[in-house]
Amino acid sequence: ARPAALDPTIAARLRRGPDGLVAAVVRQHDTGEVLMVAWMDDEALHRTLTTGRATYWSRSRGEYWVKGATSGHHQFVRSVALDCDGDAVLVSVDQVGAACHTGHRTCFFTDLPVTGAGRPEGAAGAPDAAADSGTAASGGRS
Amino acid sequence: ARPAALDPTIAARLRRGPDGLVAAVVRQHDTGEVLMVAWMDDEALHRTLTTGRATYWSRSRGEYWVKGATSGHHQFVRSVALDCDGDAVLVSVDQVGAACHTGHRTCFFTDLPVTGAGRPEGAAGAPDAAADSGTAASGGRS
Repeated sequence: ARPAALDPTIAARLRRGPDGLVAAVVRQHDTGEVLMVAWMDDEALHRTLTTGRATYWSRSRGEYWVKGATSGHHQFVRSVALDCDGDAVLVSVDQVGAACHTGHRTCFFTDLPVTGAGRPEGAAGAPDAAADSGTAASGGRS
Repeated sequence: ARPAALDPTIAARLRRGPDGLVAAVVRQHDTGEVLMVAWMDDEALHRTLTTGRATYWSRSRGEYWVKGATSGHHQFVRSVALDCDGDAVLVSVDQVGAACHTGHRTCFFTDLPVTGAGRPEGAAGAPDAAADSGTAASGGRS
């Protein structure tokens, strides 16, 4: 049987948002692909760590949610890391099928337009150089 | 000059938390390494998209924050993707130096113990098989 509550030494490190939640960034453990972001309270993190099944708090439904319990798109947890200020965890999983409820592998399938070029290609030593969007566009990889 | 406010068609897709913020997951554009999680309101997202410099809302300081402005650890934005339910963006950047204020490349340097094995290795076709922590531990890659 798993312990009844999140390890107090871990709980003490969490810095929760106003809704009592931390962000959970989920990635495929071997490829590193970022699949989704979900939310965890202490109990969801506890269940994730002690069951090896990714478990979240649904902000829209107001309930715990074991990923894949209804869809079959399970997330088997390989590792979990906490960030430096305790407001996010990075969950490395083995994702069965699609992570997104739309059927996409990842939830991040909508690109937003980036119209400002922060730095021209080849100006690594001059981060404040004037933007050169033509150069950046031709050299950009993503 | 950049427009004065976030594109209303983008703003309409955001599903903000109770503090008016969405989560920004930041990764290195070429390696895919997850570097950090920060927070954006509409204006921070607008500035990120239109300047090409990752800009966040600091929950602790209550102010906008251009990553690298004081540390020199700039984040030059290559692409931004919105997730399916509008509560998170994935920001692909070219990170100069360390993303973390502690000097680590990534903020996610603290591993949490995963004591439950969601699935034994080699049981891909039987996701509900009983956990076998010995097998999982010997075969796990991360």
